[in-house]
Amino acid sequence: MNFASDNTAGAHPDVLKAMADASAGPASSYGTDDWSARLQGALADWFGHAVEVFPVATGGAANALALSQLAQPWSAVFCHRESHIHVDECGAPEFYTGGAKLVTLGTPGQKLTPDQIVAGLADHPRGVVHRVQPGAVSITNANECGLVYDPADVAAIADVTHDAGLKLHMDGARFANALVHLGCEPADLTWRAGVDVLSLGFTKNGAVAAEAVVFFDAALAENFSYRRKRGGHLFSKSRFFAAQFLAMLEGDLWRELAGAANAAASALGAAAAAAGFPPVFPVQANEVFLELPVALAAALRSEGARFFPWHPETDQVALYRFVCSFATTREEVEMFSNRLKLSAARI
Amino acid sequence: MNFASDNTAGAHPDVLKAMADASAGPASSYGTDDWSARLQGALADWFGHAVEVFPVATGGAANALALSQLAQPWSAVFCHRESHIHVDECGAPEFYTGGAKLVTLGTPGQKLTPDQIVAGLADHPRGVVHRVQPGAVSITNANECGLVYDPADVAAIADVTHDAGLKLHMDGARFANALVHLGCEPADLTWRAGVDVLSLGFTKNGAVAAEAVVFFDAALAENFSYRRKRGGHLFSKSRFFAAQFLAMLEGDLWRELAGAANAAASALGAAAAAAGFPPVFPVQANEVFLELPVALAAALRSEGARFFPWHPETDQVALYRFVCSFATTREEVEMFSNRLKLSAARI
Amino acid sequence: MNFASDNTAGAHPDVLKAMADASAGPASSYGTDDWSARLQGALADWFGHAVEVFPVATGGAANALALSQLAQPWSAVFCHRESHIHVDECGAPEFYTGGAKLVTLGTPGQKLTPDQIVAGLADHPRGVVHRVQPGAVSITNANECGLVYDPADVAAIADVTHDAGLKLHMDGARFANALVHLGCEPADLTWRAGVDVLSLGFTKNGAVAAEAVVFFDAALAENFSYRRKRGGHLFSKSRFFAAQFLAMLEGDLWRELAGAANAAASALGAAAAAAGFPPVFPVQANEVFLELPVALAAALRSEGARFFPWHPETDQVALYRFVCSFATTREEVEMFSNRLKLSAARI
Amino acid sequence: MNFASDNTAGAHPDVLKAMADASAGPASSYGTDDWSARLQGALADWFGHAVEVFPVATGGAANALALSQLAQPWSAVFCHRESHIHVDECGAPEFYTGGAKLVTLGTPGQKLTPDQIVAGLADHPRGVVHRVQPGAVSITNANECGLVYDPADVAAIADVTHDAGLKLHMDGARFANALVHLGCEPADLTWRAGVDVLSLGFTKNGAVAAEAVVFFDAALAENFSYRRKRGGHLFSKSRFFAAQFLAMLEGDLWRELAGAANAAASALGAAAAAAGFPPVFPVQANEVFLELPVALAAALRSEGARFFPWHPETDQVALYRFVCSFATTREEVEMFSNRLKLSAARI
Repeated sequence: MNFASDNTAGAHPDVLKAMADASAGPASSYGTDDWSARLQGALADWFGHAVEVFPVATGGAANALALSQLAQPWSAVFCHRESHIHVDECGAPEFYTGGAKLVTLGTPGQKLTPDQIVAGLADHPRGVVHRVQPGAVSITNANECGLVYDPADVAAIADVTHDAGLKLHMDGARFANALVHLGCEPADLTWRAGVDVLSLGFTKNGAVAAEAVVFFDAALAENFSYRRKRGGHLFSKSRFFAAQFLAMLEGDLWRELAGAANAAASALGAAAAAAGFPPVFPVQANEVFLELPVALAAALRSEGARFFPWHPETDQVALYRFVCSFATTREEVEMFSNRLKLSAARI
Repeated sequence: MNFASDNTAGAHPDVLKAMADASAGPASSYGTDDWSARLQGALADWFGHAVEVFPVATGGAANALALSQLAQPWSAVFCHRESHIHVDECGAPEFYTGGAKLVTLGTPGQKLTPDQIVAGLADHPRGVVHRVQPGAVSITNANECGLVYDPADVAAIADVTHDAGLKLHMDGARFANALVHLGCEPADLTWRAGVDVLSLGFTKNGAVAAEAVVFFDAALAENFSYRRKRGGHLFSKSRFFAAQFLAMLEGDLWRELAGAANAAASALGAAAAAAGFPPVFPVQANEVFLELPVALAAALRSEGARFFPWHPETDQVALYRFVCSFATTREEVEMFSNRLKLSAARI
Repeated sequence: MNFASDNTAGAHPDVLKAMADASAGPASSYGTDDWSARLQGALADWFGHAVEVFPVATGGAANALALSQLAQPWSAVFCHRESHIHVDECGAPEFYTGGAKLVTLGTPGQKLTPDQIVAGLADHPRGVVHRVQPGAVSITNANECGLVYDPADVAAIADVTHDAGLKLHMDGARFANALVHLGCEPADLTWRAGVDVLSLGFTKNGAVAAEAVVFFDAALAENFSYRRKRGGHLFSKSRFFAAQFLAMLEGDLWRELAGAANAAASALGAAAAAAGFPPVFPVQANEVFLELPVALAAALRSEGARFFPWHPETDQVALYRFVCSFATTREEVEMFSNRLKLSAARI
Repeated sequence: MNFASDNTAGAHPDVLKAMADASAGPASSYGTDDWSARLQGALADWFGHAVEVFPVATGGAANALALSQLAQPWSAVFCHRESHIHVDECGAPEFYTGGAKLVTLGTPGQKLTPDQIVAGLADHPRGVVHRVQPGAVSITNANECGLVYDPADVAAIADVTHDAGLKLHMDGARFANALVHLGCEPADLTWRAGVDVLSLGFTKNGAVAAEAVVFFDAALAENFSYRRKRGGHLFSKSRFFAAQFLAMLEGDLWRELAGAANAAASALGAAAAAAGFPPVFPVQANEVFLELPVALAAALRSEGARFFPWHPETDQVALYRFVCSFATTREEVEMFSNRLKLSAARI
């Protein structure tokens, strides 16, 4: 009953096998190996578009490096006030961009809207030397509350972003979950909708460490390899990281695994609703948010459930996040649902 | 016959198996898992000293992050003019330190000496606001030319470093090779000799990606976790990285693998000498440097040998580097030696 | 009728004379001159406390450098959402701190409260590696709306700041205006109330360019001279900058000039109220904020008045800021008041 | 007998008068005043070329900001090993560029040559991700040893710089001294010879603080205003800084003052040669370098002379630098020459 995060799961056996297979024989290092070359092609196929792909160690690195390519040190990066890049990366975007300012917008628990971005832009007029200048827009899909921007949502945001002369970044730590929820193609949610750079994360999806910055315009990737290298994110034995992506793409493993995670979340959400705790946000990807009495949360934990409060537990009722992964089993969800029902009855 | 680098080898099967084993079941993420906890203890045993260990993605990150902890943005970091941190990391130390200056010392092809460091210190008097201030000293062991600082070498450098109020960093990308050459304990070459921070690299030694910053004084590691996080080097599924280290330590796998690499280099060096090309530097670790006619190098490459010139091949004779890894076979060395002898005869 | 800012005034003749006087003969450079030494003593007298003083070129530099000394790159700097450091310095604090995050708190048009800081602290728990860490608190006095924190206000903020193990910075671009409003001593509003570092600005007060970072604890100023030098803020002919401060302190010129500015603002505020436009915020220092019809503002401008809207003029009524300086004359205020009355009657 | 530096002089009375004159009445701030506008035109006339001019507080800031505009964080900035930007700015270029590496070339006491730059470029091949990439070239004119690059020197360096796709920066802290020595036009030594950006320093020449970054191509100055602002170098009362430049240009005051300084140095050099201490480097601008017994230097100091050793005085004989300014009098030079002759005879 570990719902603490989708990164508490291990890796899918096919990913581990792909790494082991990749180990045979010598290979060029630092991204010049065959696996890395094949990855470039495989992702171009996946997206239906030429791409420039740069694997890095973590999603945090992917996001921060991507933003450093889009924004200047004197830029404003517009993002949701609950965005991972603002709240959970200990200032990595500020570090990599050389001090850009993350300008936070939007309403907690809701997706960012084009109007909110337009308002943010209005607060940062171009050419006013005293104010940080519009630099980039970043959204997370699926977002931090488990909500999914559909292609129309993304396109509307991309429009105001591009109208302002900016580029659009998407934090895709749970990109596969979004795709599966929507049942759409990777293209629909990225370049076709106007995304310029994607942080593509397959780690939560089932890999060991498979995170990459994906550019849909080679010109936009100019000099990016130096940024990555300076960040210490160019793996010497790069084949082992390219191989993980290839394994996730092979036979649409990503879809199977994200589907499992989403389904588990959906089941958990339904069970919670049945127990009197309807999810606070629509369950679209693999996350469920429940308002629970703190005492109830404690009881659940004492029975082995693992999950985090979304905010500090300062009141008697708090908001909790439950994340399902590819490894979450039906049994786990059922067991948790039963415990929730029973504990709720007791409290 | 791939002598391009020791990172062109794959990973040892035991490392891959350890990763697969670590995959079972849920585990806390971001370094709070059991494997990471065990790693802390295992390395404390290995070093015979309490340590603070921070796995990161690459040796470049380990070095740059370690230096950022020791030096201030206005510091001089004293290092050898051929050091990897200066020559081969695209400015990563400058990035992570916030702009410290790498002050290069020493003679090409030779180890750094205490006198050279003392001279560097004299050029950077404390309190002169115009000049960058003494910040840290960094040496590579085994170094970039395959030479090994023995405990007395290290201690002598540590003495002048500490006398100046600075800390000593060791780039241990080939630390195991140095240990095996010397036949000494990890302690002898680190804290006992005065090393304050070690970049411990097991990747070249046989892992997929096992690099860590190791502090021998917990106080010195204060706030380091934030630096690592900001760099995007805190792995979410951290167990897979700790597990690699544990596999390398298990049954002294590191020693077996470094021993194999060193032995291969030794054999290659001897064969080259026999063919009329005595190694330019003593073969101590797993690297052999040969001065060869450029035409001979081309002939060797055409027969399948892989290796790099140490400097651009601007003259008729150039210096070449041959690196052996744990995966280098006796047959490869013999085949190369034969080709070298034959080609040399023809040119 | 220039109320655009208090920095549209020239310099007081005594300041210019002091600079001319300081020009005679040779003097050591880079802050080692006699004037700089005397400044240290003069400010110690002024504050009734030992100080470390570092003149710099601008208030923006003073603020950013001061914060870089208090906060780490992975820090949160808590400040008011309308604070100059956040809104008007094009990211200078982010640049100098190496990417710290300015966490904005408070209500527009009001002073920051201790409770708001406590809430900000609660959102940034220590030791959570994902979140930027509490680093410093900064307030502006007089603030951006012309409001003045009195000693009790400052002490209450200092208490929660120090309780959290942080240091308190005060942006004193209009410090003299605050002092005059309160009729208190420099000590009362700084170290005695718990301020650790002050950006002391005499430029708006009547100098050419007299801005300094003032530390009340020498230990806190350690290495600050290197930061200043790296920022390019150590003047070679430093005597000319120290001399300006000395001129402002001489015979309490600062008080006379701030008194004039505050009195002009007070008169302007009273006249506006009489004309039917009561100041939106209490007029405490030298700024007056009026809500005016945009058409009225345009009319006033056409008659030669200079002033800025506080926010973009998107509606029919907007908020405007009027700043008085030492050079604002009674005639100017009267003329403006008459125009306001007449124009208001016509619109 | 103050030969410690040309910045130990005060300011010329005309400069101080210009500042006082500029003080009358209100003026727009932050560089939007009339003086700043006139400066743009006056320097365009002076250079015979359209320019973009950005006054800043110090020469260090001018250099570091200029380089940050030309180089990327992953760049190599090629410069002389004795260049002020490398030796005397406490790492300001590294700070402003975000960590670029200053690659030092050349022979002490000599000007940088095109061949040396070509060799530096060869060591930093484009596209090799491990190595910092060619970013910019910087020369100082007159240089740190008082030597002057003539237009042909500059053009030859500009050629190899531009051939490599780089821009050429000139540190002109003593630009006027170079011009006067050569008797050429500002154009000859800058854009006409291929200089892309000049740090123009009139402070040593006779101003209070008159330093600016001058671009000869407006496109190259794009976004520079944000960099300057972030560095805290946009003066609020900017008129006082523009006025200084205007005073120096008025009636060619710069030439008169640099001429006086150069003549004094020439006289001092001749006197030293006559006393048996011929200048170590040709006396071209306003600096004289003498090898003197340390005991002799001590004797001269005890008689009131002020000057610095060029390197630490570790031997019995050391190299000393004597700098003349516009304020150096014939009497001072004569008195020093006599003392030198007498002291030399006694030692």
